[in-house]
Amino acid sequence: MFEFRIDGTDGVARAGTLTLPHGEVRTPAFMPVGTHAVVRGLSANDVRRTGAQIILGNAYHLHLRPGEAVIQEMGGLHRFTTWDRPMLTDSGGFQVFSLQGLRSIAEHGVEFQSHIDGTSRTLTPERAMEIQWALGADVAMAFDHVVPGQSSPAAACEGMERTLRWLDRCKRTHSDLLGRGSGAAGRQEHTGGIPGTRTAPLPPCPAAPQTLWPIVQGGIHDELRLRSLEGTLERGPWTGIAIGGLSVGEPKPVMHRILEQLEPRLPREIPRYLMGVGFPADLLEGIARGVDLFDCVAATRNGRHGTAWLPTGRVNVRGASLKGSTEPLDPSCDCETCTTYPRGYLRHLFVVEDMLGLRLISIHNIRFLVRLGEQARIHILNGTFDGWSREWLGRHYAREIEAP
Amino acid sequence: MFEFRIDGTDGVARAGTLTLPHGEVRTPAFMPVGTHAVVRGLSANDVRRTGAQIILGNAYHLHLRPGEAVIQEMGGLHRFTTWDRPMLTDSGGFQVFSLQGLRSIAEHGVEFQSHIDGTSRTLTPERAMEIQWALGADVAMAFDHVVPGQSSPAAACEGMERTLRWLDRCKRTHSDLLGRGSGAAGRQEHTGGIPGTRTAPLPPCPAAPQTLWPIVQGGIHDELRLRSLEGTLERGPWTGIAIGGLSVGEPKPVMHRILEQLEPRLPREIPRYLMGVGFPADLLEGIARGVDLFDCVAATRNGRHGTAWLPTGRVNVRGASLKGSTEPLDPSCDCETCTTYPRGYLRHLFVVEDMLGLRLISIHNIRFLVRLGEQARIHILNGTFDGWSREWLGRHYAREIEAP
Repeated sequence: MFEFRIDGTDGVARAGTLTLPHGEVRTPAFMPVGTHAVVRGLSANDVRRTGAQIILGNAYHLHLRPGEAVIQEMGGLHRFTTWDRPMLTDSGGFQVFSLQGLRSIAEHGVEFQSHIDGTSRTLTPERAMEIQWALGADVAMAFDHVVPGQSSPAAACEGMERTLRWLDRCKRTHSDLLGRGSGAAGRQEHTGGIPGTRTAPLPPCPAAPQTLWPIVQGGIHDELRLRSLEGTLERGPWTGIAIGGLSVGEPKPVMHRILEQLEPRLPREIPRYLMGVGFPADLLEGIARGVDLFDCVAATRNGRHGTAWLPTGRVNVRGASLKGSTEPLDPSCDCETCTTYPRGYLRHLFVVEDMLGLRLISIHNIRFLVRLGEQARIHILNGTFDGWSREWLGRHYAREIEAP
Repeated sequence: MFEFRIDGTDGVARAGTLTLPHGEVRTPAFMPVGTHAVVRGLSANDVRRTGAQIILGNAYHLHLRPGEAVIQEMGGLHRFTTWDRPMLTDSGGFQVFSLQGLRSIAEHGVEFQSHIDGTSRTLTPERAMEIQWALGADVAMAFDHVVPGQSSPAAACEGMERTLRWLDRCKRTHSDLLGRGSGAAGRQEHTGGIPGTRTAPLPPCPAAPQTLWPIVQGGIHDELRLRSLEGTLERGPWTGIAIGGLSVGEPKPVMHRILEQLEPRLPREIPRYLMGVGFPADLLEGIARGVDLFDCVAATRNGRHGTAWLPTGRVNVRGASLKGSTEPLDPSCDCETCTTYPRGYLRHLFVVEDMLGLRLISIHNIRFLVRLGEQARIHILNGTFDGWSREWLGRHYAREIEAP
C-alpha cells in the first residue's frame, strides 16, 4: 500500500513510482498546495487537468476551519474536496511556528492564538496526529519544530532535538490510531496521550490506511542536519522522509549544500520530500540532488498576482505588450489556459479584475511545475537529465539576471 | 441566417428556435451576462456546461476596456472569449444613462465620463453600431435612451421618441456597415455618420453576418409603450425585438401589465427579448406573457454573494445549517456544482473566502435559470405550461413571503 519503486536514475537524480492508497505518483513530482482543502481558486477538475498526481492539505488551517471533526464526519478530506487521488497533509508545525508573537513553545507542544478568531489553542504531536488521522489523507506529516532559516546553532539544535522527541510521540500516537482504527468499529473514547489536549472522541480509521512521514530539521548546520537524519532513521523504518526547514530565508547555495550533505545518507528505497520548495529552478536543483517530491504555494500565489512562468522567463500578464496578442501565453505549454485562450484575453481579464484570470494563470503555473517534473522524469529515464537540466538552468539563471 | 421558428405555443407562451450565425437557440432561453467579455468568474467551458446557448457582451464596457479595435484586431468577440456559440451585445445605452451626473444627453448622442479613468467620451447611435460591428456579435442592439422606472410621462415620452429617432440612425449605420462589410476587403476610411465621433478606421465586416434589434421604450406608460412599438415596427422589418426600460425600479405588476399590453401587438414571427430581466419568477412571468429571451446579472451577482437559488427557496451558502452537510446544494439540479460537491464543502469555500465558491454558486444559479427555460419549453410543447408555471410561482411566492 505504501511502496516506492525506483524506475531509473541518472547520477543521484531518481525517477520512481510511489504507490499510495489513492493511487500512484510518478516522481519527481510537484504537489500543488491546497491549504484550505482547495488549491486556491481551482476546482478538483482544474487540478486534475494540470496532471497533478497528489495535493497537499494543512492540518493547522483545517483544524481551525471547518475543524477536522466536520471533515471526518463528511467522510474525510477526499470526499470533502472530491479529490480522489493521493493526498498528503502537513502537520501544522510550520504554520504555528510562523505565528510569531502569537504562540509559546514548550516541550508539551505549542500554545497559539487562532489567526481567525484569536481563540487559544494547543497543538501537540498527539493532536497533530489525531487531526491528520481525522482528515484521512494518504500521508500524515510529523509535528516538527521549525526554526527560521538563519537560526543559530543553539536554536537550530533545540528545534532539531525537539523534533526528534516529538517524532517519538507522533509515531506512538499514529501507531495507536492505526491499531485502534483497524480494530475499532465506530468511535471510541481516547484515553492515551496528553490529558486535556483533545476535545473530540477518538477518530475511527480513515477510509484507507495512512502512513506517517518524519521531517529532518537542523537549520543550515550540516552537523545538526546529519544528527537529525540519523535520529530520524533510528526511529524508523519509514515509508517516506521529508526535509523541512529549508527555503525559509537561507541563501539557495546553503539549501543546495545541505541537500548534498544529506543525499548519500538518505535511504534510497523511500521517497524524499523537500517541503515548501519551490520555484521552477528549485525543482531541477532539488531533483539533481536526489529529491522526489516538492510542494510550494508560489505557483498559485504568482498566478493570482498575474505572474506567469514561461520557458522564456517570467511575464506579468498585465503587461501592455500582451494587449491584443492572439498568441498563447506559452506556445510550448499544453495546459488548459495556453491551449484555449489568447494572451490578449488573459491580459484583459486582469485589467478588468475578473477572477477567471487568476485561475487561468494559476492553472498554467501549476502545469508548468508538474510538466517540469514529467520532463525531468523522462530525462532521468533516458540518462540525459544532467545535460538537460544544466542547460535549462543556465538559460533560466541568465534570464533572471537579465530581468529588469 | 436570422430565422425564428415557432415550435409550439401554450396560450401566449411560445417555444421557438432562433437560428443565428453561430448556432441555434431554443427558446424560451436565459442569456448569461458577460459584460466584460467574461461571465463573471467563469470560463467559456463553465458557461457551456450550464447549457447556456447564447451570452451577452456590453458595448460600453468593451469600448472602454480593451477597446473594440483590440477585439476586432484579435478576430472579434467570439475568438477573443473562445465562446463559439451565439452572442448578443448591448449597445451601451443602458450603461451610459446609468452614469448619473457623469453624462449629458443631446440629440446628437451622449457625452459621458469613463467610469474607469474619467476621460470624456461620446456615444452616438452611429458609434454604438460601429463598436458593436467591430465586436462582431451575432446580434447588435439599437442605441436607446433609457429612463428610470418611475419617470413622468414627459420624461418617458422624450426618451421613447429619441429612441425612435436614434433607431433611424442605427439602422442607417448598420445597413451601411453591412453593405460595406460584405463588399469591402479589409479596412476603409469611414466617411458617413457624425464627424468627430470616430477615432478608428471603418471596421471590416464581422466573421459572420450581424443583425440589429430595436428596443421598445416608453417607461411605465401604456400609451407611450404602444406608440414606441408602433414606431419601431414602422421602421422594420426586424429579425428580433427587445423590450427595454423595465425592471428598473417599477413594481412588478406594472412590468407585467406593460408586457400584457404589448404582447398582442408584437409580431409573432420574431423573438422577443425582455432586457435585464430576471430573477427566477421573472422568467416564468415573462414567458407567460410571450417573452422568448431574457438576460440578467442576478444569477452571477447572487452567486458571488453566496446566495443560491433552489426550488425550495433561496439559501445563503454561508449559513451554519450547511456546515458538515454531505447533501448536494440542490438535489434536483444537474449542474456541475450540485453533481460534484457537498453543501458542506461549498460553505467552507465561502468561509475561507476562496474564489472557487463564488464560481460554483454562479454556475448553479445560471444553470437554474437555463434549466427553468428548458423546463418551460417542455411544458409549452406539452401544453402544460400554464398549470406548471402557476404551481411553480405559487410555491415560489409563498416561500418568498415566508422567508425571514
